[in-house]
This record gives sequence, C-alpha cells and structure tokens, in this order.
Amino acid sequence: MVSQLTDLSDGRSLAELAQNLVNLPSPSGNETSLADAIEALLRGSGHLEVIREGNTVAARTSLGRPSRIVWAGHIDTVPAHGNDVATVSDGVLWGRGSVDMKSGIAIGLKLAVEMTKPSVDVTWIFYDNEEVESARNGLGLFGAAHPDWVVGDMAIVGEPSNGVVEGGCNGTLRVEVSATGTRAHSARSWMGENAIHRAFPILKRLVSYQPATIEVDGLSYREGMNAVGITGGVAGNVIPDLCTVTVNYRFSPDKSIDEAIAHLRELFHDYDVVVVDEAPGARPGLNNSLVQDFVRAVNAEVAPKFGWTDVARFGQWGTPALNYGPGDPSLAHADDERVAIADIEACYQGLKAWLSAHPS
Amino acid sequence: MVSQLTDLSDGRSLAELAQNLVNLPSPSGNETSLADAIEALLRGSGHLEVIREGNTVAARTSLGRPSRIVWAGHIDTVPAHGNDVATVSDGVLWGRGSVDMKSGIAIGLKLAVEMTKPSVDVTWIFYDNEEVESARNGLGLFGAAHPDWVVGDMAIVGEPSNGVVEGGCNGTLRVEVSATGTRAHSARSWMGENAIHRAFPILKRLVSYQPATIEVDGLSYREGMNAVGITGGVAGNVIPDLCTVTVNYRFSPDKSIDEAIAHLRELFHDYDVVVVDEAPGARPGLNNSLVQDFVRAVNAEVAPKFGWTDVARFGQWGTPALNYGPGDPSLAHADDERVAIADIEACYQGLKAWLSAHPS
Repeated sequence: MVSQLTDLSDGRSLAELAQNLVNLPSPSGNETSLADAIEALLRGSGHLEVIREGNTVAARTSLGRPSRIVWAGHIDTVPAHGNDVATVSDGVLWGRGSVDMKSGIAIGLKLAVEMTKPSVDVTWIFYDNEEVESARNGLGLFGAAHPDWVVGDMAIVGEPSNGVVEGGCNGTLRVEVSATGTRAHSARSWMGENAIHRAFPILKRLVSYQPATIEVDGLSYREGMNAVGITGGVAGNVIPDLCTVTVNYRFSPDKSIDEAIAHLRELFHDYDVVVVDEAPGARPGLNNSLVQDFVRAVNAEVAPKFGWTDVARFGQWGTPALNYGPGDPSLAHADDERVAIADIEACYQGLKAWLSAHPS
Repeated sequence: MVSQLTDLSDGRSLAELAQNLVNLPSPSGNETSLADAIEALLRGSGHLEVIREGNTVAARTSLGRPSRIVWAGHIDTVPAHGNDVATVSDGVLWGRGSVDMKSGIAIGLKLAVEMTKPSVDVTWIFYDNEEVESARNGLGLFGAAHPDWVVGDMAIVGEPSNGVVEGGCNGTLRVEVSATGTRAHSARSWMGENAIHRAFPILKRLVSYQPATIEVDGLSYREGMNAVGITGGVAGNVIPDLCTVTVNYRFSPDKSIDEAIAHLRELFHDYDVVVVDEAPGARPGLNNSLVQDFVRAVNAEVAPKFGWTDVARFGQWGTPALNYGPGDPSLAHADDERVAIADIEACYQGLKAWLSAHPS
C-alpha cells in the first residue's frame, strides 16, 4: 500500500490518494509506516526542505515571500472498528480516518508536492499522536524541538470542519469537585454523613447552570458546563465518606485559564475543587488581514470552533490560526465515518486557489 | 495455641479462653484449625452429639426436654490489621475478634461443655464464613444440609449486642437506579443528554426522603434509605450516557421483600431499577413465651436490631430468634476492637442461669 501512496507522482487523483491513506493504518502510536511514506514522498520534491522528528514530518518552501503560512494535519487515527478498509460508493469515501483526517492529509500532501511556487511561503507539518494525551502530541513535541518551524503569519489546521472556516477554539478545564462525609454501617446510617447525598448540591448547580454564549472577534462561542464523571461508594453496606464529581468547563476564548478556574472555584466555593486538566482557548484572529484574505478567497462560511484543537497551540506560539478541512467532524471516530469526495475536492481547490493567487 | 484452647478441660477461665481464641487466627476462609480445635473439645464431652459440615461444628443434647433452643455463633473474623495478638489491660481484652465474636464463642464453648444437664435441650452451632458473601455463610450451608439441626423453639445468635437482647432485624435491599442519556463530545454538550445531570432527581429524592420508624411486636425499627454508590462517566471529554446510583434500603420487619421492592420501584418509578441484593427482615418474636421468659431471666434491656444478622435465617426456618452477646457492635472490624472481660462474664452468667433454672 505504501507503493500505492507514493504513486502520487504518477498523477494519482486526490480521491485515490485519500483512499490509499485510509488503507494504510496509522492508529496513534503506530504511525511509523505512514510517516516513512510521507517522508519519502516529500523528499522526492526538490522544492521542499524536509525534516523529521519522531513520526512527525515537516517540509517548507523558502521562496522569500513576504508571508509564511503553516499548514498542519495529524496522521494518526483512533483504532479501526471493522472499518479498516476504505470503500468508495456513490462518491463517498468510507473507512477509519476518512474524515478525521486522512482526507485532509491527502489535500496537504498533494498541495505540498504540487505547489512548487506558492504565492506565500508554506510550512507543511504532518504530525503523530493527536488522538491521545496532550503530552504525546506530535505537533507539541515538534514545536518544542523546532520552534522556528511552527511560527508564521497564519496557521491552518486541516481538521474536518465541513469546509467551513472555524476560528479559534474554546478552552477546556476539568476539575474534581468532592463532597465528604463520615462512614457508618448502612444499617445505622444516622451514625454517618452520606457524601453522595452531600454531592446533591453539586449536581443541582450543574443542572441549573446556564452556559453563556460569548462573542469574540465577531464569532459567538457557546460554553458548556457538564459533569463528565461521578464516583462514590465504599461497599454495599457502608455510608460513603467521599463523592467526587468530575466537571468539564468549556469556556470562551475571552477568558484565561485562571479566570476559568476562578469561575469554577466560585461556583463550588463550599467544596474541594482540584484542577485535573486544563487547556487555554484561542481567539479566532479574524482581525488579522491575512486571515481575512484567506476567508474571502476560499469563500467559506466562518464559524466558531467549540472543541479544543491544535489551533490553540498556534495561538500559544503567537500565530493566528484557524481550522479548515473537509468532512463532518461529528462523524469523526464513528463506525460509519465517511466523507464526500466532492467535499475533499472543494477544500483542495479552495486552498490551491489561495496559495496560487494570494497577492502577497 | 490449639493446646491452650483445649486446656479448657483443666478449668481455664472464660477470659483465658476468649484470649486464646483471639490468638488462634481464623479469618474467613481459614477457619480449619479453629474448627478442628472446637470439634476436638466438643467430642471430648460425652453428653453431646457432635457433627461437622465443612468448618461448621455443631453439638446437641438430647435429654427429652419439652423445649429446645439453638445457640449459634460464627468462628471467623475479618482479617487482622496489626491486632492479631490478644492483649489484656485493665480488665479489657483487645485484638481481632475480641468483640466480633470470639468472646461469644468462648461463652458458647464453655457452656456447651459445662452444661451437661441444661433445663432445655440445646443445639450449639459454631459456623464459618459469616463475614463474607451470604452464599458461603456456614450457618446457611449447615441449615441446608441438616435442616433438623437448626429448628427449635427459640434461637440465640451470640453476636455482640452490648449485653442487650436485640430482637429480629431490619431487612436490606440493594438496587441500582440508572439514569440514561445520549453521548456527545463535551465540546458540543448540547448535542447530547447528560445522564449524570439526569440522575439529579434520584439524589434529590434520597436527600428529601424521610425514613420511617415502625413498631413491630413492641420494638421500634428505624429504617434507612441511602445511596451507597454512584458511578457515571465515559471519558473526560464525553457527555455520559449512563449514571447508576446504588441505593440501600433498610426496611422494618413488618415488610416483605416484595413490599420493599415495590416501595423502591414507586420511589424511582421513572428510572430503571435493578435489584442486586436482598435479605428479608425478621420479626422480634417477643410474643413468644420462651423468648419472654429468656428476656426476664437475663434481666436485659430489649432493643430492635437494625443490622441484618443471621437471626433472620432462623426467622426463615420458623424459629423465633434474638441476638444476645457481649461487646459493643460498633467496635466490630475496628482496629481498636476490644471488649471488657466483665461484660463477657455477665453475658455468660445470664445464659448459664437461664439454662440452669428455666422451668421447662
């Protein structure tokens, strides 16, 4: 299948390339074969400078253009679940990774090889381990090792966005809110204090919480406040002394991490609150002229990104970033993951036109 | 230590016997050595017929008395926790099993051997595996194998009761009450239905529930309704589709199991309710003349038993039963488990007097 992938140089179509990429399995942690193939393909293109860090492969032009953009896409997928072989039917590509995000990788690879003289300098990053914990994220590790390779005037993350330009992203915070009590035998429950019963107000506040929708740079970010876990109980005959609710707060990029934490500490001021995970949001950067030009060129709708994506990493590195890729993100990780080939083509043409004609 | 135990025949005191029993470890499932010693001791007493079933040893007199009582005590303990060696200080016996219930076993063993001509016929049962799941309970297995050995006009379970006569016991029911929802990515929580949030009314009903106190045969049984476990959550970024609350209902012996289940199904009528554990209560039997006579003879306070004990097994076998033993049951299983030797002595004297003088 690697031989099929590298057949791109023989004029293989975008759809065939996407299909071949699906047929080359790369679940997180097992991306070596795919990274090898990508590296070979890019090194075969004389206009690109190529480096590799682990299973992350990056390539860039250096044409002395006044602007540089960074395009990034992850090459890993969640594990297949009976959908490890690509099929095409009625113009739709099915299979693991078809939408998240081997269609996007096909676009990035094809443009990286084809666009020998883009109107802006481009850095292409194909990275591993996006679907797992943040500490293993290939883009994060690559950016730490090669900070000069991740900065630019604008970044595009190729995650599926239904062909819409999604700007910025909400931040996410996960905290454990715990109620405590006193153990007792449940036959004499009045001797103890039931921590699960004492957690009742935590759920009450979550149920009655009205999440805000906040406008940032012209986009409306919808927040969310949810219990994503609850645990309590010692044994079937014991009044429990601890009940912990894990709360996930998705907050608008108008707030810092510290502000988000303060908001949760206020909401649960009478409980123990422990922060277990945090990631800042990213403002959409729509006040940036290059971003505005891109949005006009691809003629796409602009929407806020609710989920946390690697767009936020670029935000931390000082590069305005947006999300633009083919396919419905709600089908990501699904057993019936699929993408219309026409949508891949449309996204490819949009990017290609801008990279060809941008007046920089 | 076995040799110490069998020294009873040399006139070893009740306190020494209790101490030696503590020094002979018998955590549940490891009662063989102790059962061997008990069997040897009882077989050495010519007035007793002895049988053994697994690690349960039983002995009985057959003097043709008009009444027969059954005395039962478990010989296992929960595992020691730094308290596997008995110590005596200021008239108090310390160590694993001192209260639950090797002091009671000492009383039963001493009386079984000494009372060659009790005023009622007596069946003595020393059984294993009381501290573990009901299916392994030695009394239950013994009663199933030898049903004629567990019936009588009255039964006494020697569990610690602070020297008070405790009548009957509450029943216990454990059910899982589940709220369901629809999974979604927590970044777009409005696409799902949060099952933990939907479990809020379950906790609300538990918190506002007013447990009843119900009089049965002159004793007041206090009920209890508690969450003893709660679980929900798929992952830190997923709106959960299931939240399960484990509810323990301790119900008065005026109710059957079916009535208790119906009560819970009514309380949580709009949720899935699955029964995971059940044990009926036992009425105190204080309208039985033999029980009344016993209570008068030992001159003890009479109180309801809240916790479920093997008293309920005798109830199911048609034998009125009560609980009478030395020591504070709230110290059972505790690291500082202990019992005053004077309390062991008092309980022993009460039983001995009644077995000697009962006018049957």
